Amino acid sequence: MKGLIGVLGGMGPAATVDLFNKFVTFNHANKDQEHIPLIISSIPDIPDRTEALLNHGVSPLPLMEDYLQRLEVAGAECIVIPCNTAHFWFDELKKSCHVEILSIIEATMNEVISTQKNKIGLLATDATMHMGLYQQSIEDQGLICIKPDNENQKMIMKSIYLLKSGEFSLAEDIMKKQADILFSNGAEIIVLGCTEVPVILSNEVKSHPDKYIDSTGALVRAGINWYKKRIGKIN
Amino acid sequence: MKGLIGVLGGMGPAATVDLFNKFVTFNHANKDQEHIPLIISSIPDIPDRTEALLNHGVSPLPLMEDYLQRLEVAGAECIVIPCNTAHFWFDELKKSCHVEILSIIEATMNEVISTQKNKIGLLATDATMHMGLYQQSIEDQGLICIKPDNENQKMIMKSIYLLKSGEFSLAEDIMKKQADILFSNGAEIIVLGCTEVPVILSNEVKSHPDKYIDSTGALVRAGINWYKKRIGKIN
Repeated sequence: MKGLIGVLGGMGPAATVDLFNKFVTFNHANKDQEHIPLIISSIPDIPDRTEALLNHGVSPLPLMEDYLQRLEVAGAECIVIPCNTAHFWFDELKKSCHVEILSIIEATMNEVISTQKNKIGLLATDATMHMGLYQQSIEDQGLICIKPDNENQKMIMKSIYLLKSGEFSLAEDIMKKQADILFSNGAEIIVLGCTEVPVILSNEVKSHPDKYIDSTGALVRAGINWYKKRIGKIN
Repeated sequence: MKGLIGVLGGMGPAATVDLFNKFVTFNHANKDQEHIPLIISSIPDIPDRTEALLNHGVSPLPLMEDYLQRLEVAGAECIVIPCNTAHFWFDELKKSCHVEILSIIEATMNEVISTQKNKIGLLATDATMHMGLYQQSIEDQGLICIKPDNENQKMIMKSIYLLKSGEFSLAEDIMKKQADILFSNGAEIIVLGCTEVPVILSNEVKSHPDKYIDSTGALVRAGINWYKKRIGKIN
């Protein structure tokens, strides 16, 4: 199958469902056969990324490499990874892989830049914050990154782990408040820089799509673009 | 990864998203690592199943066998296929595969039998109807199968193909009417015997879960059960 996209998912599974759903709904197709071909690994035993980076937890890299290789063996010609924190290991993953990997950070930043906004709010995991995965790119563009303070960051992590355990409503209440705080602190738009966050804030993003940059959505649009180039539909 | 379940999907992609979402939401998990491990093929160029069976279209079997093999190579220990019509080729697929395949028809019929209802409505594709995939199992149990007449069956196919082209609302209006007709003709419960139908009727099933047997849901429950046995959590 020409243009098969491999999804290194399971980090977490609900975020991988969200990415898959966006691949199906963002791409206009008149029949099954016009949809984007995907092979998706949602093998969730990959050690927690934030735990590894901030609390000396087990590294997720060996299992990510293992599952990446399975996708390659199954015929993937390009890889997407619906987990922002996992992009800390992006360079290592690229080295262990023989096909292209699209970066969620790069795809998201391209959409941030195109909004021409100046003050960029950020909702992400502790580890993504700590490693500056977005902050550095935002500041490299001469833009201002509006981040939560330590107490609010704790609430964001609480919300993310609530979703991972299936507690959608409570996760939503907490995260919505955190988005409001970033707006009241001057953010013009907010980057949803953890793939659980667009799931948690799905109702809010539906009501106010212009206020958010959804990293999962950005990655899907980059993936669809890659596919259309691959099959010769666009240059 | 012990107990990896392979999903032979893409028939169609929205139905595969629905199955994946049900694997994530039906299984109670407190963290990523407790979710069911899945490897999902959503490669949608498999020729249309109904076209093949009723209009001398290209057989989907060779590509289904190809993608099944990719799942095996990637490490799948058990296969589920979220497409009822594809189960016409169940025996051939089983022969070409070295691991267990769970039948959506068997999983669904087990749930039908456990309701102890007598008059079973059926919403399915033309091909599933024509091949008697459910009708025979229902009648073998001494139950009565309530089917749409020819004109109504055309509307059901219209609704299914509308969903495949992304037209959710129109698909929903049409299918809801067809469900009502089956109830007014005496059906006590309705088997959603095409994996697009639980997607189309998602709002209705949420409001009245006891009126429907969702074939996708039944397959997911069978898959979770298989997994728990495999990892030794249940006997």
